[in-house]
Amino acid sequence: MANYSEPMLRDGALKGKTIIITGGGTGLGKSMGIYFLKLGANLVITSRKLDVLQESADEMVKLTDGQVLPVACDVRKPLEVEAMLKAAVDKFGAVHGLVNNAAGNFISPTERLSPKAFDVVVDIVLKGSYNCTLTLGKYWIEQKQPGTILNIVTTYAWTGSGYVVPSATAKAGVLAMTRSLAAEWAKYGIRSNAIAPGPFPTEGAWSRLFPDALAKELDPLKRIPLKRYGEHQELANLAAYLISDYSAYVNGEVVTIDGGEWLYGGGEFNYLDQVPEQMWDMVEKAVRGKNDKKQE
Amino acid sequence: MANYSEPMLRDGALKGKTIIITGGGTGLGKSMGIYFLKLGANLVITSRKLDVLQESADEMVKLTDGQVLPVACDVRKPLEVEAMLKAAVDKFGAVHGLVNNAAGNFISPTERLSPKAFDVVVDIVLKGSYNCTLTLGKYWIEQKQPGTILNIVTTYAWTGSGYVVPSATAKAGVLAMTRSLAAEWAKYGIRSNAIAPGPFPTEGAWSRLFPDALAKELDPLKRIPLKRYGEHQELANLAAYLISDYSAYVNGEVVTIDGGEWLYGGGEFNYLDQVPEQMWDMVEKAVRGKNDKKQE
Amino acid sequence: MANYSEPMLRDGALKGKTIIITGGGTGLGKSMGIYFLKLGANLVITSRKLDVLQESADEMVKLTDGQVLPVACDVRKPLEVEAMLKAAVDKFGAVHGLVNNAAGNFISPTERLSPKAFDVVVDIVLKGSYNCTLTLGKYWIEQKQPGTILNIVTTYAWTGSGYVVPSATAKAGVLAMTRSLAAEWAKYGIRSNAIAPGPFPTEGAWSRLFPDALAKELDPLKRIPLKRYGEHQELANLAAYLISDYSAYVNGEVVTIDGGEWLYGGGEFNYLDQVPEQMWDMVEKAVRGKNDKKQE
Amino acid sequence: MANYSEPMLRDGALKGKTIIITGGGTGLGKSMGIYFLKLGANLVITSRKLDVLQESADEMVKLTDGQVLPVACDVRKPLEVEAMLKAAVDKFGAVHGLVNNAAGNFISPTERLSPKAFDVVVDIVLKGSYNCTLTLGKYWIEQKQPGTILNIVTTYAWTGSGYVVPSATAKAGVLAMTRSLAAEWAKYGIRSNAIAPGPFPTEGAWSRLFPDALAKELDPLKRIPLKRYGEHQELANLAAYLISDYSAYVNGEVVTIDGGEWLYGGGEFNYLDQVPEQMWDMVEKAVRGKNDKKQE
Repeated sequence: MANYSEPMLRDGALKGKTIIITGGGTGLGKSMGIYFLKLGANLVITSRKLDVLQESADEMVKLTDGQVLPVACDVRKPLEVEAMLKAAVDKFGAVHGLVNNAAGNFISPTERLSPKAFDVVVDIVLKGSYNCTLTLGKYWIEQKQPGTILNIVTTYAWTGSGYVVPSATAKAGVLAMTRSLAAEWAKYGIRSNAIAPGPFPTEGAWSRLFPDALAKELDPLKRIPLKRYGEHQELANLAAYLISDYSAYVNGEVVTIDGGEWLYGGGEFNYLDQVPEQMWDMVEKAVRGKNDKKQE
Repeated sequence: MANYSEPMLRDGALKGKTIIITGGGTGLGKSMGIYFLKLGANLVITSRKLDVLQESADEMVKLTDGQVLPVACDVRKPLEVEAMLKAAVDKFGAVHGLVNNAAGNFISPTERLSPKAFDVVVDIVLKGSYNCTLTLGKYWIEQKQPGTILNIVTTYAWTGSGYVVPSATAKAGVLAMTRSLAAEWAKYGIRSNAIAPGPFPTEGAWSRLFPDALAKELDPLKRIPLKRYGEHQELANLAAYLISDYSAYVNGEVVTIDGGEWLYGGGEFNYLDQVPEQMWDMVEKAVRGKNDKKQE
Repeated sequence: MANYSEPMLRDGALKGKTIIITGGGTGLGKSMGIYFLKLGANLVITSRKLDVLQESADEMVKLTDGQVLPVACDVRKPLEVEAMLKAAVDKFGAVHGLVNNAAGNFISPTERLSPKAFDVVVDIVLKGSYNCTLTLGKYWIEQKQPGTILNIVTTYAWTGSGYVVPSATAKAGVLAMTRSLAAEWAKYGIRSNAIAPGPFPTEGAWSRLFPDALAKELDPLKRIPLKRYGEHQELANLAAYLISDYSAYVNGEVVTIDGGEWLYGGGEFNYLDQVPEQMWDMVEKAVRGKNDKKQE
Repeated sequence: MANYSEPMLRDGALKGKTIIITGGGTGLGKSMGIYFLKLGANLVITSRKLDVLQESADEMVKLTDGQVLPVACDVRKPLEVEAMLKAAVDKFGAVHGLVNNAAGNFISPTERLSPKAFDVVVDIVLKGSYNCTLTLGKYWIEQKQPGTILNIVTTYAWTGSGYVVPSATAKAGVLAMTRSLAAEWAKYGIRSNAIAPGPFPTEGAWSRLFPDALAKELDPLKRIPLKRYGEHQELANLAAYLISDYSAYVNGEVVTIDGGEWLYGGGEFNYLDQVPEQMWDMVEKAVRGKNDKKQE
């Protein structure tokens, strides 16, 4: 029987594929990359910091015996993106998939942000994503080669969210790009999809940010109906599905993997979870009593 | 300057129109009806209880000097709906608008519901709405007369919600019908739209249901960013706009009027509202400090 | 390298699971069932026609060497659903998954439908789904056993669609139930998800319905950016993922697998696909010319 | 009775309000502005071209007897936005509403765009909108004064669309900002809403762009179930409602006014509109025949 912390796809599912993951040296990008390697893919990982990338690449190779090309690349700069693609093609012959995963985020009341702070997030997330997408798309169209794009967004790409407004704004843009190109570029054999991950553990970022008392009060687990965080392999399984040819008929879709978090918050009466069982017994009796009276 | 508890539309905006409101004898249905009358419409109100309807009709006439026809009608029964339409046409010559407002709801854990309890809500809300819609639609198409449908739904028609699952299910169906017929029946001059009202005051229903301590704990105002309930005239203004010809180019739309409630719950980081100002000062310093260090 | 018409999940992914598929004797239900069997699941298939079911079961067993229990069951009748569950538990000891797949549909202008015709579809699709869901949910909660629900809906569950309004209405209700219970029943270890399949081939239904000339004119392929229908294994791969524990953190989600169809139709300018390349050259020159003039 | 090309709101609905409309000198921005003036508002209109603005302002004053301040302002530049706000406050004492209406768009296959061309649209639409929003928001929060934001987006902000991908991307960002701040800034009395207009006539832009034969082939009216374009007063009525206090409980909402266009395209079977009546007669007979056979 399957266990959600285990790999899902058949061996060799990504054999012969070369996949670029921006922001691929750390966090969820790294976890996806490791799984892609295990499935037989070649990997290109990028970020601005070559030393971090190189270290990650070494670790990944050790773990998987796959091939990893780390390339320093500021996704905000089209020329660097083009150079990165060139390096990837030089090394592996071709590129088949792109995961736009590089991101930046501030947690802050919006009125405390300068336009410049807003720009920083939008430039990395939105401009970075379309720079990479344009570059890869033109390459695939020119080469008459199919390609697959996978964009990592958030659930607040459609609900919006306070306190992360630059990120909400930028991720929404990436989602619209996903859907737009799914329609427009399908004729070239290029698919576009997205994943909206909920809370996956990120090494105590939260507890470092807020003092213990507040961190406890703000506990995100309260908001997740499944009452646990996601495990990286769960995201990696979904990502591998969407970047592989197994999902060839999924196009323009954003798949949410958040344990039900956003719907739980959005549904008007879900907070009635706080009503204890015996209270429901009383409510039931009261309603029944009223109906009995009515029928008299 | 406009005040939101005052009427919005120009006098006579609905003059010459006859509008049916199901469930029009009480609550929001009654409030919409009174405003439609003030704007010059003739009104047909229906529910299963003629005595309640008659009393409401008398009150409405006194308030507005308009014409109101109360018709007892179980919307679950197509023959009664047809008879109701006939009575309306006999009295006023024609009908121009339909507001599907009749509803039923249980607040209950879903596992405590029988299939039969589920049926009750679905039959009133969903079957009732399509019975009325089919009857009016056929009449308009046959008469080659334009018509306007306005369906009252909820925000959990798209998010879903626990504890009101039969209602969520039925209202979602009504919303899909709204959008379907907006596309299909536009060629006959029939528009379909919906309103998703958030929490509008309903005479202490809440406090009667739960004991004080719990009612306070569950206070829905906590979930509404505007920190107040809606006033009936606010809903009436929106409904009058959507049932009038002023909205002639709005078709297939559901307009939410909930003070921002569902988005506030759905957006992943909105709960950071609980972080006090001085804490943000500290966070800001911490982030800045870290960035300063990085740049060294 | 993966091929989309091949199975995706690791062997044994559903070993030890027993899964009920309503409407499981034909079409997509049957295709999902065969794949679940291959992955090690026990299967219960239901419909109103035992002879069809038995024949399918025999075929499935031959293909997969798995165990299949065919049970005649009208999902509109709660007692029959309870009996079906009892038969399944008697045979396999427990049930772990439910696929609400049974459906009915008419293609017809809505004004040609009677309320009764509307009821037929709503009763099978919506009432059938909640009858099965309530029955299974209560069983899982009582047994303190986790469970997984997978509902087969359509893309017009949220966009609505003319000419299939009863189905749109009912499927929207099923989707809202999916999202509602994802929030409410997660605390019992019960997940709910949905799939919205686009056009998967259904043995010439289309060409039988319309004469050749019209069928060609109406060709659904025109509306699918990927320019092909889906293959049953593609749907089966997605369904197996969502019913398995690999998707344990996906909850309340509807995954669309339609080749991009609904977005292609919905996006305002996608029809510019009809503009030939040389026209774009001209447009480009015209725009550039205008901009040059502006800068003078 | 109301006529959709007539003004809707009661006289004086915006009396005492000062409203900024970016891109307010032409097109829909100008139409909204004229109506706001008629309702008693003071107006600030901005764009990069002072001569165009001045001419529009003169015309607007003549038409309405209201007060209009034209201010040259490149919304991409925060300092210019701040200067514009200062000029507005100097002239009128306070500002109460902001309409983010300034836009840029290319119609082009995406692979023909440079990253720079993409930037141009994103900078005007998205950065321009958040520059104005941040500036106004900080001003309102500091002054402890309520404010209302209205963002003009598009239906492809959520569906995406080929051939206008930079605009889709940027407008989606604006929509997410709308929803984010509706949640976050409601506590300061600041509401945020949006309008998604469908096709409103724009002085032959279309026919100038494409040669007659193609323009006819591409006729957008084919895609609009109501079979007409919107009139500017219809948009102005909706905008006046959303910027006025009459909509005080509408927050975080995007109202679509497109005649049903996007739903018509998105709904899977709406294209059956092409099936003629007599064909439906035949289909009906065929289905009935089959059912009769089944019952034998």
